[in-house]
Amino acid sequence: MFGNNRLRALDRRESMRLLAKAPVGRIVYTRQALPAVLPVNFAVDTGGSVVLRTAADSDLVRAVDGVVVAFEVDDYDAEAQTGWSVVVTGRADVVTDAAEHERLARTGPRSWVAGRNGVFVRIHSEIVTGRDIVAAAEDGAGDAS
Amino acid sequence: MFGNNRLRALDRRESMRLLAKAPVGRIVYTRQALPAVLPVNFAVDTGGSVVLRTAADSDLVRAVDGVVVAFEVDDYDAEAQTGWSVVVTGRADVVTDAAEHERLARTGPRSWVAGRNGVFVRIHSEIVTGRDIVAAAEDGAGDAS
Repeated sequence: MFGNNRLRALDRRESMRLLAKAPVGRIVYTRQALPAVLPVNFAVDTGGSVVLRTAADSDLVRAVDGVVVAFEVDDYDAEAQTGWSVVVTGRADVVTDAAEHERLARTGPRSWVAGRNGVFVRIHSEIVTGRDIVAAAEDGAGDAS
Repeated sequence: MFGNNRLRALDRRESMRLLAKAPVGRIVYTRQALPAVLPVNFAVDTGGSVVLRTAADSDLVRAVDGVVVAFEVDDYDAEAQTGWSVVVTGRADVVTDAAEHERLARTGPRSWVAGRNGVFVRIHSEIVTGRDIVAAAEDGAGDAS
């Protein structure tokens, strides 16, 4: 029944599984004292970290290097009013180690946009949370909150 | 060609048109001094404001009432590496006017989750930005940045 679905928390393992299969996520940060958000393609790397690629001189790099950011992925079915989302929260750092940069240049993500392949940014998955909205009929018991 | 697409800015009118057709967006805010993001269904209301519905006692309401937040919608084609995103930035307020609440209760959005229909939150679209990643072949000229 519409408007009657239920929310469930996802554990870290399930959240990481969903994160790994999403092609695009959204990096959430602060830019000039305002909340900011930017969708980007990415890869999941060692330790469950999120790696994305962007121009070395981008506003994004200036805003996120060395600070805690959030990174969100989701998928939903608007008809059934169901879906899931996963949020990783942790420190973002530009990858400065040359060997690490080399490895990521071979195996890591590549920006969809020309001229944006200067640096890799790694987000450490310090906090991982996930939630799932399931149809009421699929969820026998439990409170909605 | 992959990794060779181009970024374009969308004007406010085109951004608002895309916003209005998205079923789900993501509210971006600060919770306990950390960046936070939550996907929600919503409606576009008077003056291009974004209205969503949630529980009156939710963490979201406590975190966003009276403060500037961002609200993001997007859509993309991972195969073609193209897509668009729109971000609205502005002050969020719980709707406290009784007549306004009544009107929105009849015509406004309804939470997908049971028990979350306590209050409406309005985000004023003070800043509206949009961007579009288009295939290189579709975009004859111009710089990628």
